[in-house]
Amino acid sequence: MMNKGRLYGVGVGPGDPELITLKALRLLRSCPVVAYQSADDKESIARGIVAEYLPGNQIEVQYHLPRALDPYAAQPIYDEVVIPIQEHLAAGRDVVVLCEGDPLFYGSFMYVFTRLSDHFETEVVPGVSSPMGCASALAVPLSYRNDVFSVLPAPLPAEVLEAQLLNADAAVIIKLRRHFTKVRDVLHKLGLASRARYIERGTMANQRVVSLDDMDPSQVPYFSMILVPSKSHL
Amino acid sequence: MMNKGRLYGVGVGPGDPELITLKALRLLRSCPVVAYQSADDKESIARGIVAEYLPGNQIEVQYHLPRALDPYAAQPIYDEVVIPIQEHLAAGRDVVVLCEGDPLFYGSFMYVFTRLSDHFETEVVPGVSSPMGCASALAVPLSYRNDVFSVLPAPLPAEVLEAQLLNADAAVIIKLRRHFTKVRDVLHKLGLASRARYIERGTMANQRVVSLDDMDPSQVPYFSMILVPSKSHL
Repeated sequence: MMNKGRLYGVGVGPGDPELITLKALRLLRSCPVVAYQSADDKESIARGIVAEYLPGNQIEVQYHLPRALDPYAAQPIYDEVVIPIQEHLAAGRDVVVLCEGDPLFYGSFMYVFTRLSDHFETEVVPGVSSPMGCASALAVPLSYRNDVFSVLPAPLPAEVLEAQLLNADAAVIIKLRRHFTKVRDVLHKLGLASRARYIERGTMANQRVVSLDDMDPSQVPYFSMILVPSKSHL
Repeated sequence: MMNKGRLYGVGVGPGDPELITLKALRLLRSCPVVAYQSADDKESIARGIVAEYLPGNQIEVQYHLPRALDPYAAQPIYDEVVIPIQEHLAAGRDVVVLCEGDPLFYGSFMYVFTRLSDHFETEVVPGVSSPMGCASALAVPLSYRNDVFSVLPAPLPAEVLEAQLLNADAAVIIKLRRHFTKVRDVLHKLGLASRARYIERGTMANQRVVSLDDMDPSQVPYFSMILVPSKSHL
C-alpha cells in the first residue's frame, strides 16, 4: 500500500523573510507541494515572504478561504477548498501549508488542520507571531512579570473592547481595518491613546509607523495592529 | 571617536534549536559578545538552545536577574547586573543578548533593554514565543476569528484567574510551578479542566505532556504551561 503524504503547517513569521525559522526553511525547500491561502485576485502574503527560498520545482496549490463568512455558512466552502491539498496527501506527496505568523494563532491554517489532521500525519511548525514582530519593530516591551496580556480583535463591539482593555495590563488589537475609528475612540476614552502605538506591515519592507491621531482611518490595511504595552517599565 | 557597539536582543524561541530564526542565527554567529541570563548554579536555557551554532571564539557574559524580587528592590541590582554588557558596548563590541522565546514578551531582556537602549543603538529580533511553541507541540489550535486570547501568569490570585478565564475565549497560563494546584482548582471550578492541556518544556528534547489530573503538583518545572484553547473548532 502506498504511504500517504505528511501535512506540515508552517509558520513563516510576520513578514521579514529573515524571521522564518530554520525548520520552516528546511521543510519549505524539501516538500514537493507548497500550498498557501490568497484571495483569487491577490498575491499570497505568505508565499511572498518565502519566495526567495523556494527551489522553483515544486507543485504550488493556492486556496482561498473567504475571511468574513459566518462560521456555519463557511463549512461546506472550506470542505471543498481543502480537496486539492487532500488529493496530494492521498497520492503520497508531503504538503507544506505556508502560514503568515503562527499557524495555530488566528490563522486560516486551522480550517485545513481541522479537516485533514485526523486523516494524515500532521506536524505544525510554530512561527514568530505578529504581536511579537510588531513589538520588536517598535522596540516596545509588551508585557512583564505578572501582567495579563490580551489579544483583542477589533471587530468586537466597543463596549467589549473597553471592558477587555480595562481587564488587561497590556494588549494588542488586531484586524483593525474599518474598525480603526471605533478602537481609537475607545483608547481615548480610557486614557490609553498616549500609550498606544499603531504599526502597519510590521517587519515587512514597507513597514509604516504612524501616530494614532495622525492615521487616516480610511487607509488602514489588514496587516496593521495597535499595541498597548504594559506601563510597568522598571 | 570610537564607535559604540550595537545591542541586539535576540529571541531564540521556545526550546527546539531548529525554531530559531535565520536572523537570530546570523547575529549570534557574527557578534563578538554573547550574553545570557542564568542563575549562578545553573546552565543558561537560552545558551543551551543555541549551543550548537556558537562558533566558539566569542566572549560570553552571564548575568543573573533574580526572578521573584519586588520590582523596586530589584532596580539597583539590575542596574549593576547590566554593567558588563554596557562595558562591552562602550568598548565598541556588538553584544547579542540571547532570550528564551521572544525578548519583549515576559522576558528578562526588558531589564537590560530599559537600561541600555537609550545609550546604545539597539535592535530587537523577535522569536517564536512559548504559547505558540506549545500549541504546535500539542497540535492544538489556540484561537480563531474574533476570539479574545489572554496570557495569564499563575501567581495571580485565584479570583483574578477565574475572572480572567471567564473573560477570555482562549488562554495560556504561564509561570505555573508552585501555583499549579490553585490553577487546576480554578479550571475545574469553571468547567474548563477537560479542555485544558498541560505541557512542560514544549518543543525541547525532554518535552513532556501529562493530563492535568495526573500531574504531580510538586513536580511542575518553570518551563511549563497550561493551554485553554478556544472551543470553536469549525
